[in-house]
This record gives sequence, C-alpha cells and structure tokens, in this order.
Amino acid sequence: MRGLMQDWPLLCHRLIDHAAIYHSGREIVSRSVEGPIHRTNYARLRERALACAKRLDAGGIRAGDRVATLAWNTWRHMEVWYGLLGIGALYHTVNPRLFEEQIAWIVNDAEDRIVMADLTFVPLLEKLRDRLRSVERFVVLTDAAHMPETALDAVPYEEWLAEADSDFAWRALEENAAAGLCYTSGTTGHPKGVVYSHRSNVLHALTCNAPDMLGVKSGDRVMPVVPMFHANAWSLAFTGPMSGAAMVMPGPKMDGASLYELLDAERVTFTAAVPTVWLMLLRHLEETGRGLPHLRRVVIGGSACPRSMTERFQERYGVEVVHAWGMTEMSPLGTLCSLLPEHEGLSAEERLDIQVKQGRPPFGVEMKITDDEGRPLPWDGRTFGRLKVRGPAVARAYFKAEDEQILDPEGFFDTGDVAHVDANGFMQITDRAKDVIKSGGEWISTIELENLAVGHPDVAEAAVIGVPHPKWDERPLLVVVARKEAQPTRDSLLDFIRPQVAGWWVPDDVVFVEEIPHTATGKIQKSALRAAFRDYRLPTA
Amino acid sequence: MRGLMQDWPLLCHRLIDHAAIYHSGREIVSRSVEGPIHRTNYARLRERALACAKRLDAGGIRAGDRVATLAWNTWRHMEVWYGLLGIGALYHTVNPRLFEEQIAWIVNDAEDRIVMADLTFVPLLEKLRDRLRSVERFVVLTDAAHMPETALDAVPYEEWLAEADSDFAWRALEENAAAGLCYTSGTTGHPKGVVYSHRSNVLHALTCNAPDMLGVKSGDRVMPVVPMFHANAWSLAFTGPMSGAAMVMPGPKMDGASLYELLDAERVTFTAAVPTVWLMLLRHLEETGRGLPHLRRVVIGGSACPRSMTERFQERYGVEVVHAWGMTEMSPLGTLCSLLPEHEGLSAEERLDIQVKQGRPPFGVEMKITDDEGRPLPWDGRTFGRLKVRGPAVARAYFKAEDEQILDPEGFFDTGDVAHVDANGFMQITDRAKDVIKSGGEWISTIELENLAVGHPDVAEAAVIGVPHPKWDERPLLVVVARKEAQPTRDSLLDFIRPQVAGWWVPDDVVFVEEIPHTATGKIQKSALRAAFRDYRLPTA
Ligand SMILES: Nc1ncnc2c1ncn2[C@@H]1O[C@H](COP(=O)(O)O)[C@@H](O)[C@H]1O
Repeated sequence: MRGLMQDWPLLCHRLIDHAAIYHSGREIVSRSVEGPIHRTNYARLRERALACAKRLDAGGIRAGDRVATLAWNTWRHMEVWYGLLGIGALYHTVNPRLFEEQIAWIVNDAEDRIVMADLTFVPLLEKLRDRLRSVERFVVLTDAAHMPETALDAVPYEEWLAEADSDFAWRALEENAAAGLCYTSGTTGHPKGVVYSHRSNVLHALTCNAPDMLGVKSGDRVMPVVPMFHANAWSLAFTGPMSGAAMVMPGPKMDGASLYELLDAERVTFTAAVPTVWLMLLRHLEETGRGLPHLRRVVIGGSACPRSMTERFQERYGVEVVHAWGMTEMSPLGTLCSLLPEHEGLSAEERLDIQVKQGRPPFGVEMKITDDEGRPLPWDGRTFGRLKVRGPAVARAYFKAEDEQILDPEGFFDTGDVAHVDANGFMQITDRAKDVIKSGGEWISTIELENLAVGHPDVAEAAVIGVPHPKWDERPLLVVVARKEAQPTRDSLLDFIRPQVAGWWVPDDVVFVEEIPHTATGKIQKSALRAAFRDYRLPTA
Repeated sequence: MRGLMQDWPLLCHRLIDHAAIYHSGREIVSRSVEGPIHRTNYARLRERALACAKRLDAGGIRAGDRVATLAWNTWRHMEVWYGLLGIGALYHTVNPRLFEEQIAWIVNDAEDRIVMADLTFVPLLEKLRDRLRSVERFVVLTDAAHMPETALDAVPYEEWLAEADSDFAWRALEENAAAGLCYTSGTTGHPKGVVYSHRSNVLHALTCNAPDMLGVKSGDRVMPVVPMFHANAWSLAFTGPMSGAAMVMPGPKMDGASLYELLDAERVTFTAAVPTVWLMLLRHLEETGRGLPHLRRVVIGGSACPRSMTERFQERYGVEVVHAWGMTEMSPLGTLCSLLPEHEGLSAEERLDIQVKQGRPPFGVEMKITDDEGRPLPWDGRTFGRLKVRGPAVARAYFKAEDEQILDPEGFFDTGDVAHVDANGFMQITDRAKDVIKSGGEWISTIELENLAVGHPDVAEAAVIGVPHPKWDERPLLVVVARKEAQPTRDSLLDFIRPQVAGWWVPDDVVFVEEIPHTATGKIQKSALRAAFRDYRLPTA
C-alpha cells in the first residue's frame, strides 16, 4: 500500500524559488573578481538564473549536459549553478588549484560543452585551449568593459546573458536526475567524478542544516569561504537560499585582511573554511588587534581543526567553533561536532577535548568502523578502524564507472579514513587508511602523532609517515619543519612525545626539512613524502 | 542522466534508529495512564519498538495493514507507532473525542485489524465492540496488574509484547509506502482518511524543524501536548527522535495544573498545543502566581492564536510564541510565524501585529491564494482568497478515493481556508471558505469580525455567521456568549466594532446565547450555528 501524498520531487532550483518568494530582498554581497563589492538579492538572483537557464537552453545545452565552472564564490557563480540546475544540466565545478594537466584531463573526462570562467583563469584557459576537446565555448564571468583581449572563443557573461530574458519556466525533472559533478583530487591514479543528484543535494542541505548542525537561520549572514569548487561549498550555496540567510561571497580574495574586511563591514554571523584560511585570519586579528563582534559561528573542516584554533576562536573572540568532517563523495558533510546536553557544565578544557573530534552525523548519515576484514569494531572512543558511511547523499559509484562496485555488502562506502567513535557517537579521525602505520600488525595513527608534534613550541609543521622496517614491517618517522629561529633536536622532540603515547608509538627517528609538500587542496601530501623517504634507513633497522 | 548517489529511502523508523544510536540515554518521560510518571530512553524505546514489530509480525500483521490506536501521548504510543512503521503497517490514530458513531465508522472504513487502546477507552470500546467488523483483537496499553475486567477479546500490552524479544530487523520498504492514516473531522459527510507515507513524514519532520521553524535541538525537552491522534502531534513524535531531544509526554491529563507540573518538574523547554489548552495553563499560572522559567518556546496552532495569548506568554512569562497553521492533509504543518531579520527593532506591539498571522511556509510547502475561478490574487496583506498548497507532505487523494481528483490543474490542494498573504509571504487566515460571508458578491471575513468582538470586555466568546438576506444574499449575524456578570447590548457591541471595519462589514444584528457549539477538535461548529439560525430574520431584511 502506498501513501497518498503529493509527488513533489526534491529539486535544487526549488531552493532559490523559496528564497526569492519568502526572502526576496535578502542580500547577496560579493567581492567581485573585478574588485568592487557587488550587491544583489534573492529575487534578482533568481531572475538572472532564469535568464541563464533560458540562454543555456537557447544555446543548445540539454538535460544531462555538463558545463564547467572555474570560478570563485560570487553571485554570478550562484546564478550559473541555479541556471544549469533549472534545465537539468550539470554544474561541473573545477578546482583551479589543480595541476594544469589534471584540469585538462577532468574537463575532457566530463565532456564539458561550455566553460564558465572568472577573469582570473583566462590565461590558464588560453594555455589549455588546444587540449580541451569537448569545449564549444568559453564564457568569461564579467561584463564587456572588463573583457580582456583573448585568443579564446569567448564572450563576456553579461553580454551572453543579455541575449535572454527571464521569462522561462524551470524544466520538469525527476529528483534523481544528475545535478552536479565534482572530481576528487585523488593522490594516485586519475581523479574520479562524483555525480550529485537533485535529491541528494536537497536532502544534504536539509539534514545538515538541522538546528544542532549548521543551524543557519534567515537572520544569519553567511560567508562561505570554502569554495563552491570544493565539494559544493559544504552545501552553503543551497543552505543559504533554503534558510533565507544573507550571503557574503568572498570572491578571489581569501587572505586574512580581505576576509576580515568582509566579516566586519558585512556583519557576517556564520562562516566556514579549512583551517589554513583561519590561520591567516587569526594572524591578521593578532597583528591588528581587531575582534569579531558579529561572528556567531565558524565551521572548520577539510582537515583536522587544531585544538589551539578552536580555543582561540572561542576563548579570545567569543565565536563558537563547529568542527566538521566530510568528503566530496558525501556531498560533502559527514559529521559535525556540536555539543550535547550531556556536555553541559564541562570546563573549557573538557569542551575542547570533545571539539577536537570530528563529531557526530546528522540524521541521514549512517556510520560504522570495521577492521580490514569488514568486521564491526566497538564504539569505545579508542579502537580505531576503517570508517564507512551510508546515506542518501553518499556516492554509490563514480562517473563513467557505474558498474564498479565501491560499496560493501551492506551498502556502506569506505571513506578511506581511519577513526574511532565514542559511546555518544562522536567520531574522531585518526588517520587516512593509506597513511596509517602498521607496525607488527598493530595500527599507529600518524595524525595523532602529528598533533602531538605540532604542540611542541619549536615545530612549525609536522608529518609522520611509515618507513619500511625489517622486523616490524613499518615504523613511524617524524618529518618536521622547525619554526624560524628555533633549533629543535631529535631528542627534544621525542622526549616531548614519549610521555604522551604508548611506547611502541614513539617515532623511530626525526628528520628536519625546509618544507612539507601539499596537495592542491592544502593537505599534506604523504605519498610524496613516502616516496622521498622510501629508502630512509631508520636507526632501529 | 541520473545522479550516482545511494538509494537510501526516507523511512520513519530510521528516525528512532538515529535517536537510539546518537542519543541513546535521552529521556522519554510520560505521565502514564495508570497515574505514575514513567521514564525510559531512546535506546530502550527502540528495543521495545523492535519487539512490538516482531510481535505484530508473529501475529500476522503485514505491510499495508492498519492498526488503530486510541491513545494519549505516552511512551507506549510511540513504541507502537515505530513498531508498526518498522514492518510497513499503518498507525491509524483515532481521535477519541469524536462521536461514537464516527469512531465506529472510521475503524470500519480503515478495516483496522487490531485496536491498541489506553485504559481510558476500554468502556468506549466495549460499547462499540459489536459494530467493529474488522477488528480481530484489542490490546490494552497497560500491564497485567492494571488490566480491567472486560468483555472484550483483549490482552494487556505488556503481556502481549513480552511474547516477542527485540531480535528483529526492520522490514525493507520503499519510501512511498503508506505509514499512517488519520481521518479529518469533516463537519459534513463522512470523515476522510489521509494516508501519510514514510517519505512525507520524514520530509515533513526535516523541513518543519528548520532552525527558523520549530528549531528543536538535542538540548530541548519537548512536550507535545497536541495529541498524536491530532495530525501526528504536529510531527513531534518524529522531530523529537530526529533531533535527539528529550520528550515529555503528558498522557491523559491536559488541565492547567497537570501540565504545569510537568513543565516545571521536567524542565520542559519546548511545547505545542491548541489555544484552549494554553488558556487553561495561563489561568492556572495566574491563580498560583507561578512562572515558566524553563520554557523557551511554545507553538500554538489548530485554531487562531489570540493576540492577548501571545502577549501574555511573551511579555509576562518570557516565552517565545510561534503561531502555526496546518491541517490533517498537510501532515499537518503549513506555516509557522517566526520573525525575520526585517522585523528586528520592532516594538512589542508591532511584533504582535505580525504574530497574529499564521506565518510563512517552510521550504517544502508552496502556497497560493486564488479567487473562486482559480485566478491568483496579489500578495498585498489585504486581498483574501482561497488558500491552496502544494508539497511533498500534502495529500493528493483520500483513502479509498484515489481516483477522486482533489488537486487543481497545477497540483495544488484547496485547504478550504480563506487567507491573505503579505509581501513577505506571511499568511493570515481570514476564514474557512464555507464560513466566509458573501454579501453582494464581496467577501466578509467572519474570523476578523470575531476577533474584534472578543476584544470587547463583556464578550466571552463570539461567532459570526452569514444568514440569508433578500437583497445581499447573505449578511453577517454576530452570536455572542457574554462574560459572567456582564450585560452587553446589541448597540454596545456594534458601536465597538463599527469604527474598526468598513461600513458594509458591520453585522446586521447580534444575538446572545448561553453556549456556542464546538467540534471534537475544539473549533466553533459553524454549520450547527448556521442550521440553528437558518430562519433568523435580520432587522434589515
Ligand atoms: N493557526 C490557525 N489559525 C486559524 N485556523 C487554523 C489554525 N491552524 C489550523 N486552523 C484551522 O484548522 C483546519 C485544519 O483542521 P484539522 O485538519 O482538523 O487539523 C485548518 O484548515 C484551519 O481552518
């Protein structure tokens, strides 16, 4: 027997409709790529998204077609997203920080028909032009006045858009229709495309904006610093319109001073980004002595949020930190670390002990941890294993690889992360599965060791990798970038770590380097480090 | 092209799974029908719901079967809901306040196989027994010690439940499977059954719990005074587990003193009920001089929330009021009146001007107002018309009447309410379509006139109905119950109303009565009033 409720598909463009009707005048403020601050609102943004849809349609873009965006967070990028969504085409966000090779490979793999790019990326596209086989046209997200001389077959967005009016009706779609495409920056092999559906995006926005999770309200002024090309800007380009919140889009400038300027002038109440961004902001605040009187909440994820960062935001600036974990394959949010009633009355230190964890999932994400054979492990806050997830906004296959089984027999996706979970369901990442060190059959968490190492006052950055060992298979090696002027020694560091971990976790050696390699998304590139130290001979070997 | 995200159906029992995992120890406190306060938690409630599912299954209840509940809000009622949901059977909530005839008709129409009833309703069922053709067995929601002598083929729930353990897996279901059945208390004709689906219930819980809407968090202690048999308790039996909030279930006692006792002893932070319930509470507070230090938010709906009630809660007791509107066919919530950033800085009086409105819809409810011919009317806060709605938790047909078209050509359901909407999308009910008075082709809102009339200090309750008029078709008649000791006159009331409305809105006459008839759900029964005054001769006729 079936329910007798209406068939109302969950479609992304219904979010902008809702915003345009019930929050029509709410601002979208952007730092434009051209420079000046630009202001619009949801009603106008929807009008222009409709025109964009009509223009795309007139240009022969059809449901299922892919259109690449190489763009910062601005109102134009949002318009393009909703315009594409409204005709069933896919927004394919390309991360401009990838290597040129990878960008070309991705655009070709996606078979993008149009590339919509910010001015910033015109030189890059000129270089890549000849390698982009499927691209029929380039649209530069600017107006005629700012259009550069270029050899590309390119038009300025504003002129292109002006060829259509907004008298257009969104196309009828079913909710499982593809909505967006985003490639994961795999460290080995070719990048893999994740194909979001309208349903998964809408459900992700709904579940992750629970009052205890992101909790964005119409009274918020939301600044997504995390780029739209970085896994849907953690859904904020959907959550904002859904909640009727004002949006503050930082455009191309993500240094501390530029972000502070927007936080302050635009009275931002809610923001989100990776830890490196917040390091720059905190440094700027320290240098200028300014505060954050408007900001209510900051979401920090993408890599582990250091305890000291949470402490600084909370104790010094009165801003609540929500540590979050996710991945491209999860739309991307998987867990958020918001406290429970059980935690009331904790001291600031005890709160921080919880907040270093990645948190608990919203309704709509199921989690388990297993050993290498897939057997479930206990949730005791200590035992760590492979973290696997299931839910309506979790990938079941990659683009052009629908037949490759990536789920376990129970339908769970292996995140590639290693984690433990406590009795309250708070998950903490202890490693990447491929980084975890297997010493004599037991696992050692490289992330935990790194966190301890950076706690030493002489250490600027630290990485731990496993290097081959004749007896134990692998043993940990600590790789350190020392702070300027500081002169840490092998023994000073190991003595610092020793009392804090089990004896067999203590690294077998320490090496000092000028620099640690990073991926395009700012994560430590352990594969490169491992390659560099493959033949390193440990003193214990 | 389809998205490549997981197929994860939206199923109601996933809500209790989520609660049992991430909020296992959170309390469900109930005033039991037997008397004492009972305490359990989500983990145990889920265990028992699993046992209930297993027991139902062993008893031959299959997916699609209907099981009636005649029960107050208690932990046992919740267990039964989730147990039924978990095997794909339907919880059919029967409103015990209906006339006996109607109850018998409804149970027969639903073809309920089991009736699960509180002790309170055993005498009622004994009377109805012979007329309930489909019922195979009665389960009394109590234990053996409290089981009364009865001629019914009845077992106590606890003994029945003990025949199964909780080693059971929820049945696999698709999300459009029927989940629940609730009949609307139509004032004419037979009641009509609304069939909720798993999907509609889950989406309704998600959308209505947006941070700006219900906004229930894990730190809340939620007391649904609105009964589960009244349109899903406004979704709180789903929203609570989804959010991990503690639940406080008032059982059979909904008088002011009993509710106050729970609000106070259980530190309730969030509650919801119809205005009549709150009148009793406010009276109790006044008589006892007590306050509401724990309560943060009260949702008031089901009929219009008087301005004075909102004012009392907010100004005197510091409790935020959220006025809400909905109906059985909407799962039930349609709009909630939470304020926008635009409203910041308003005076208390100006806020109240907005809060008398029924509010704006969450994402997932679309609204329009039209004239009798279905043409859309402007949203100017004055022009009123038929209110129509569309969304994933809105009915498309009634039970056993799937082929009867109840939606307009655009797929909107006619709520039977008459309303205007302002430029911010705030809707205000001005009448029921069948109650609105059509005087010379123009509409007069009976609710607006009633609200004005009850503003007169001598008036206890007021109703306005249209009575036949030779020239104008219909003209308004004001029916009044005077306050004890007060002696209002026709002229004193009309003089009070006259300066506040257009001349042609002023009622043609006033009659004083001892009592105004009410429906089973506490609404003024205008059809009965109209019948009583059908032959009334207006002085103007
Ligand atoms: N806040 C409210 N103000 C005025 N009428 C309301 C309100 N909430 C519900 N109603 C009325 O109750 C009807 C639904 O009744 P029911 O289906 O029994 O819940 C609606 O169509 C409205 O006429």
